[in-house]
Amino acid sequence: MMMSNFSLTQIGVIRSELKRIEDAPLSYKEGAPGAVVEIFPEYKDALHRLRVGDEIVILTWLHLGRRDVLKTHPRNDPANPLTGVFSTRSPDRPNPIGLHHAKVLEINPGTLRIDAIEAIDGTPVIDIKINF
Amino acid sequence: MMMSNFSLTQIGVIRSELKRIEDAPLSYKEGAPGAVVEIFPEYKDALHRLRVGDEIVILTWLHLGRRDVLKTHPRNDPANPLTGVFSTRSPDRPNPIGLHHAKVLEINPGTLRIDAIEAIDGTPVIDIKINF
Repeated sequence: MMMSNFSLTQIGVIRSELKRIEDAPLSYKEGAPGAVVEIFPEYKDALHRLRVGDEIVILTWLHLGRRDVLKTHPRNDPANPLTGVFSTRSPDRPNPIGLHHAKVLEINPGTLRIDAIEAIDGTPVIDIKINF
Repeated sequence: MMMSNFSLTQIGVIRSELKRIEDAPLSYKEGAPGAVVEIFPEYKDALHRLRVGDEIVILTWLHLGRRDVLKTHPRNDPANPLTGVFSTRSPDRPNPIGLHHAKVLEINPGTLRIDAIEAIDGTPVIDIKINF
């Protein structure tokens, strides 16, 4: 079996008060602030019929993740045993895709305000899906 | 804001009795069969400490998805109004990433048997995360 490569296109960006990775909580359940998802103009039609109150999944590209890491100490805590990254939510992984759940609070042309996300300002967005 | 592109690397492949897209249910909740996730040898260390019974998220590359589609009729049903793909789970979307939830039933070196997935045989796998 040959391995393939695929090309991802950025469709938007996270705008958040979280400016540094050190300030970001490890998950959205741990006090992540609200944020704005900016969708680039060429993709705004893909937001059609999305509604305030909808629960969504946001996929991001964790651009600061290390792609050569296969094992890690969960939660960056050396007391946790080394664990394969596929058994964690670490941003360090072969394809550093972030998976976030959020609720839509407000919709404006090309932007969504959401309730909470642990991604820092400037994080590229690669997909949005309805959650069910 | 400049759009960026990112390069995804395939880390494995789905092995399933579902051979054709026409045979695949629209979601794993609708009678999807069990399957095997083959992880390529260079990534098998990333499975370390994954356990039978773990709930995981599998991200796939939906290689048959159309990347130029921004609006679609949900569930391929023309009776459903045209809807932006970011408000659906359609495989047609700018970055055709599939998001699947599954339970690990069996672990062998480099393969996981899982309970259900609606992806067809040969679908590239790009990430696995623990679910919580």
